[in-house]
Amino acid sequence: MTASPPLHPDLAPLAFLLGTWTGHGQGEYPTIEPFGYGETITFSHVGKPFLIYDQRTTHDDDGRPLHKETGFWRPAGPGRVELVLAHPTGIVEIQEGTLEGTTIDLKTTAVARTSTAKDIEALTRHVDVDGDVMRYSLEMAAVGRPLTPHLRAELHRSG
Amino acid sequence: MTASPPLHPDLAPLAFLLGTWTGHGQGEYPTIEPFGYGETITFSHVGKPFLIYDQRTTHDDDGRPLHKETGFWRPAGPGRVELVLAHPTGIVEIQEGTLEGTTIDLKTTAVARTSTAKDIEALTRHVDVDGDVMRYSLEMAAVGRPLTPHLRAELHRSG
Repeated sequence: MTASPPLHPDLAPLAFLLGTWTGHGQGEYPTIEPFGYGETITFSHVGKPFLIYDQRTTHDDDGRPLHKETGFWRPAGPGRVELVLAHPTGIVEIQEGTLEGTTIDLKTTAVARTSTAKDIEALTRHVDVDGDVMRYSLEMAAVGRPLTPHLRAELHRSG
Repeated sequence: MTASPPLHPDLAPLAFLLGTWTGHGQGEYPTIEPFGYGETITFSHVGKPFLIYDQRTTHDDDGRPLHKETGFWRPAGPGRVELVLAHPTGIVEIQEGTLEGTTIDLKTTAVARTSTAKDIEALTRHVDVDGDVMRYSLEMAAVGRPLTPHLRAELHRSG
């Protein structure tokens, strides 16, 4: 529609995330069968000091949609990152943490849920980018269990 | 990419929202100058029991991006709707309320914010759809003020 606006200077430390990333991950949790998934993540911007974040995964077996989440990544001063996320499971989440070079470590600082949502207490998220390769891992505290490994994936920048 | 999947039966009461809506609105608040804005809202689905919601506004004066929010609308039993939203201002929000025909009334049931976010306490949202015309109004409680009219707009379905 319109030409891409210039990057907001506050976004420079997070510019290494911009683009579309696709790849494959593995999921596990004590209460479920392990599973493999395909994933696409897009980071974009509109010239303002936040990244627009969109994500979706599909099941390896039949390509059916699995998870989707959407939100914004915000620089929050030197070495700090904030994440605001909405999940279609009825959960919204604030994560905050650190940025060192191209490595991000975040943990949940607040969760809110709708009346009918499942019980997820907290997540941690470790993201590491090496050129056009992104690796992440995620731990989840849910259904009464402490933070436990849940997801890990390797994605490649495709655009 | 892939053909559109069948609508999840739980989504039927909200199917009247599907599509892309564009139009114009007016903003006001005791602490700001009134302003006009253009808006595009998209409701889509992936065959699961939620609507994917994406929204953006631009300023009438120069077309610069104003607000953006993203999240999911969820049917929550007969006559009930839940909304999970992320705002790039560092705020996540749960709204819950009622659906009567094609009229939706929602209010904030939970808000969480990042360390650097501004202080928004609550919003109410009234949405009314008449065929391909959507009208909404929004009240906001922020910066120490009670719920006060903030936005109203009329949008037309364009796809």
